Amino acid sequence: MRVLGIDPGLRSLGWGVIEAEGNRIRHIANGLCQTSSAGGAALADRLLSLHEQLTEVFRRFLPQEAAVEQTFVNKDGVATLKLGQARAIALLVPAQFGLPIGEYAPNKVKKTVVGVGHADKRQVEHMVLMQLPGAKLAGPDAADALAIAICHARYAGASALRIKA
Amino acid sequence: MRVLGIDPGLRSLGWGVIEAEGNRIRHIANGLCQTSSAGGAALADRLLSLHEQLTEVFRRFLPQEAAVEQTFVNKDGVATLKLGQARAIALLVPAQFGLPIGEYAPNKVKKTVVGVGHADKRQVEHMVLMQLPGAKLAGPDAADALAIAICHARYAGASALRIKA
Repeated sequence: MRVLGIDPGLRSLGWGVIEAEGNRIRHIANGLCQTSSAGGAALADRLLSLHEQLTEVFRRFLPQEAAVEQTFVNKDGVATLKLGQARAIALLVPAQFGLPIGEYAPNKVKKTVVGVGHADKRQVEHMVLMQLPGAKLAGPDAADALAIAICHARYAGASALRIKA
Repeated sequence: MRVLGIDPGLRSLGWGVIEAEGNRIRHIANGLCQTSSAGGAALADRLLSLHEQLTEVFRRFLPQEAAVEQTFVNKDGVATLKLGQARAIALLVPAQFGLPIGEYAPNKVKKTVVGVGHADKRQVEHMVLMQLPGAKLAGPDAADALAIAICHARYAGASALRIKA
């Protein structure tokens, strides 16, 4: 089963692809879809760019399942709104490819990959590299995306056939 | 100039199309793109449905410009997140058609259409019908969408050629 994990973000959306067979997982690829407000780029254009970049990742790596990190609602309404808009693209693209989508809270991802729910970014990177030897990480957001894919492989592996049926 | 106005929402996204020529405007169509969480529909599926319905509206009415209501950030983070996700679709679709997109704050829309910034929904409906005689409104969200289109026609009409150039 090929899983594509997504860590949503408007400025930097991390993605990571792994192949899971039973209990074994291996790294396929990871990267970032990036957009910038430089040059006064409108939000609509950034969302369009995010959609095009992420669609290209799905076309290139042909995942069978997708996993997206659940979004924290925080007190900063503007940040919540931005993240919500990026997350809509992260959910829309796999839905357009007809893929089952798993959603996981950040704490569950960390607990699965690192063993504790409040691990910092370096611990996540370290454990992702331990479990996916040879992977070169495009950045912290890509490491998070691989962690989300690993989490999905661990939890959804057995039930994936039911979800798809 | 044919303008499509959008009032974003996950449960009910209003849309309205008008034709503007100089100072004259006329109604073309209005309606709602609706999604429901009934039957446990996942957010991804609702966003996909919204994207498909809104894309169909653009294909059918071939607007040349789009206008979207700016989103209020309120204290309810969950509501802000939902609205942000619906708004991402409302911005993505016109961007995919390569259209210029105007964004207007709710107060500006009301002030333009009703004359005061704090008009209630009935006043907006009343004034929309006054300015677009013969229109049959699909609901309050569709009336808001027509008001947004009217606002865009009033403000962007003169500058539209510059934006497109």
